[in-house]
Amino acid sequence: MKAAIYPGSFDPVTFGHLDVIQRASNMFDELTVSVLNNTQKSPLFSVEERVNILKEATRDIPNVRVESFSGLLIDYAKSKDIHVAVRGLRAITDFEFELQIAQTNRKLSHEQLDTIFLNTSLEYAYLSSSSVKEIASFNGDIYPCVPEFVAKLVYQKYGFENR
Amino acid sequence: MKAAIYPGSFDPVTFGHLDVIQRASNMFDELTVSVLNNTQKSPLFSVEERVNILKEATRDIPNVRVESFSGLLIDYAKSKDIHVAVRGLRAITDFEFELQIAQTNRKLSHEQLDTIFLNTSLEYAYLSSSSVKEIASFNGDIYPCVPEFVAKLVYQKYGFENR
Amino acid sequence: MKAAIYPGSFDPVTFGHLDVIQRASNMFDELTVSVLNNTQKSPLFSVEERVNILKEATRDIPNVRVESFSGLLIDYAKSKDIHVAVRGLRAITDFEFELQIAQTNRKLSHEQLDTIFLNTSLEYAYLSSSSVKEIASFNGDIYPCVPEFVAKLVYQKYGFENR
Amino acid sequence: MKAAIYPGSFDPVTFGHLDVIQRASNMFDELTVSVLNNTQKSPLFSVEERVNILKEATRDIPNVRVESFSGLLIDYAKSKDIHVAVRGLRAITDFEFELQIAQTNRKLSHEQLDTIFLNTSLEYAYLSSSSVKEIASFNGDIYPCVPEFVAKLVYQKYGFENR
Amino acid sequence: MKAAIYPGSFDPVTFGHLDVIQRASNMFDELTVSVLNNTQKSPLFSVEERVNILKEATRDIPNVRVESFSGLLIDYAKSKDIHVAVRGLRAITDFEFELQIAQTNRKLSHEQLDTIFLNTSLEYAYLSSSSVKEIASFNGDIYPCVPEFVAKLVYQKYGFENR
Amino acid sequence: MKAAIYPGSFDPVTFGHLDVIQRASNMFDELTVSVLNNTQKSPLFSVEERVNILKEATRDIPNVRVESFSGLLIDYAKSKDIHVAVRGLRAITDFEFELQIAQTNRKLSHEQLDTIFLNTSLEYAYLSSSSVKEIASFNGDIYPCVPEFVAKLVYQKYGFENR
Repeated sequence: MKAAIYPGSFDPVTFGHLDVIQRASNMFDELTVSVLNNTQKSPLFSVEERVNILKEATRDIPNVRVESFSGLLIDYAKSKDIHVAVRGLRAITDFEFELQIAQTNRKLSHEQLDTIFLNTSLEYAYLSSSSVKEIASFNGDIYPCVPEFVAKLVYQKYGFENR
Repeated sequence: MKAAIYPGSFDPVTFGHLDVIQRASNMFDELTVSVLNNTQKSPLFSVEERVNILKEATRDIPNVRVESFSGLLIDYAKSKDIHVAVRGLRAITDFEFELQIAQTNRKLSHEQLDTIFLNTSLEYAYLSSSSVKEIASFNGDIYPCVPEFVAKLVYQKYGFENR
Repeated sequence: MKAAIYPGSFDPVTFGHLDVIQRASNMFDELTVSVLNNTQKSPLFSVEERVNILKEATRDIPNVRVESFSGLLIDYAKSKDIHVAVRGLRAITDFEFELQIAQTNRKLSHEQLDTIFLNTSLEYAYLSSSSVKEIASFNGDIYPCVPEFVAKLVYQKYGFENR
Repeated sequence: MKAAIYPGSFDPVTFGHLDVIQRASNMFDELTVSVLNNTQKSPLFSVEERVNILKEATRDIPNVRVESFSGLLIDYAKSKDIHVAVRGLRAITDFEFELQIAQTNRKLSHEQLDTIFLNTSLEYAYLSSSSVKEIASFNGDIYPCVPEFVAKLVYQKYGFENR
Repeated sequence: MKAAIYPGSFDPVTFGHLDVIQRASNMFDELTVSVLNNTQKSPLFSVEERVNILKEATRDIPNVRVESFSGLLIDYAKSKDIHVAVRGLRAITDFEFELQIAQTNRKLSHEQLDTIFLNTSLEYAYLSSSSVKEIASFNGDIYPCVPEFVAKLVYQKYGFENR
Repeated sequence: MKAAIYPGSFDPVTFGHLDVIQRASNMFDELTVSVLNNTQKSPLFSVEERVNILKEATRDIPNVRVESFSGLLIDYAKSKDIHVAVRGLRAITDFEFELQIAQTNRKLSHEQLDTIFLNTSLEYAYLSSSSVKEIASFNGDIYPCVPEFVAKLVYQKYGFENR
């Protein structure tokens, strides 16, 4: 069985992430989407909230699992016996940063964890969780960026209940 | 069964290409390496020679097939019912060009042909078929760049028989 | 009156070019779209054909004029007393090349010709006249890339009359 | 009347900004330079100080207005019925970030706010408000970077009164 | 005598830095490696520790000196009558940032301080002090990244004494 | 004695090249500027003409020699016992191409030929021999780009004798 892992912050999941999840789930027998528990950042949603949001957003894709992890990705992937990581690429800056991480992971895992990149679909090319949060914080329109139930949860976090 | 296609010119195949082939063959049940028959370029090796070289260079990887094709990749992939193309990424310039092709293929195939990118291993990051040919044309050393039997064939093309 | 010039090869005009034309025509009182008569290239359409295609494609935008020119852009712009050139930006490679030309034009014109850049709309970000021609040469589908009457003219050039 | 808006932090305004202001004021009937009131950053100068500095620095350009705004640019532009934003481009990193913002603004405004880019003149290509502040904080020479009266105000902020 | 300076944070020194030091020491009669005392950052090692680590790591290269400095590089270089700075280049993002600094230094020093760039050897191309620290903080393997005695010191800082 | 080599086409030498020559000649005891005899291109000036132009343009810099070479740079550098190549960097596209060549040269020379990069001074950042030739071919003004005696020679080649 060919399995892959899609790690990320997903704070919150966007249509860009969901596009990568849909496409990667077509390529592998099982795809594990895993929320990084990064204790150094101050996320909008807790790890548990993000796992639940992802489960809801991907419930129609049968071969997708949602989990969370902390520490190094290579240790987590080894514990699950998964050898492929999936990452989306939006732009040049992404590209360099992602390549650095992919190379480091391949070296540190003694070539046991490889990374494949999917380029983000054009309509989501400039979409990021950060910009979604910034726009929502000014009560701007994020419905084109995230699923409707996610948008409502984001507005709630910023106190725009009836949006 | 999960199948993928790795299209390219392979004129000649380098250690960089073989690195991508090895890694992609681990990710899919079957990998078809296919030589593009581009009638507009003047290749060093004929399509038939390149297919034979690739077969020899990959004969230890059981799930790799070698073929050739002409025309649009999306038509060829459709005829073989393959939905994933594999491409190696070396650098920024590659990145932009490859993304353009991947987006075009995805659009023209009505999302039936997706592309995944593998970043070239560091030791092959600056290796290209073109530079191999330029170095060989001055009788420079290409043994660090291609398999030994390929190097000998390239030197023959440039008239350096006993190298 | 604020006037601008949009120079290019337009061989053929794509939806990406038309997007730039539409947006730039909103920003200036008059926009002159001008086909560069580059004697060194072998175009698919003659300069006259390209001018006629552009006139047809822009006939609903009242403040757009279509012309052709040869020689240096700064000389042509000076002859028309226009001080702003418009260029579309698709990607990093475009960006560097376009900046080089813009800087050179500004210097050579003694700051009489400035350039503004519009970023191509996302849905046309990877569209180019070259890829349109390559796809059409294999009888691929270019209707998503150019207006219908342009597509028919391109197919004619490649001998696909009844497409 | 063709109007445009040039939003920014301007903390402080540099010769690079003033170059963009001068050139954009030639292209439009009216240019509104507007200081973003970003409550999350710790600026060197208050919004009021920055507005006053900009008014002084641009007082010889009759069609330039100076204002400030908070919140989303698209809401501010809509309230003023302005449909064009102006941004300077210095380098690749700028380019990607600026394109992301421009695309987002165009989408969120339903194509009512478009962005044009001017490439910074070569002599200011590597000039930024941040580097001006860092150099001044070590009592380095910032007279090549900002107008004389601005330099004196910056040195005052860092306690170098008699520079 | 031709002298050069290699400024940096070196928190800690990596094999990538040592590669630059070795190669630059071959090009100049004397190379001064100098630790920047940047009071705004929270380093893992103190300036004194970093100087001592560098002295130990370079003790076999006779024409290398190790020092520290604070303030602007151009003032420090002037005080030592050195006119060439050395910097390593890993990637595009580095490139832009480094060029900005090099241009600023050249301008502020009235062309008395020039900068040369060495491209990092491929095997260290994606290595940075930051990633070394992040990996070590999770008790990951940093022995491929830094000299053995440096690795032990880094692990000590993160409380992994017996690694 | 520290020696370096500056290889290139120099067809013709521009102020950008001369800026690199001046700065590199300050860093090394001897700088050899060497014209690549590339038989595949159709140059404007013969190798002999380019050598003579370079000698004239650099006659005030005592430690500069001008030569020509054909074949691989690493073979030429080895024959002269020079271990450092100098290259100017203008932009991102340059950067990638130049790094590829530098890495290849370092590998093929078994680390006997290293490359240093100087970033082109801002006022010459967008200057290239190609654009000089294109502008001159339309009788445009190239006096800001090359020394006066070079400009006259270029205009002669294009039949503009009395410019």
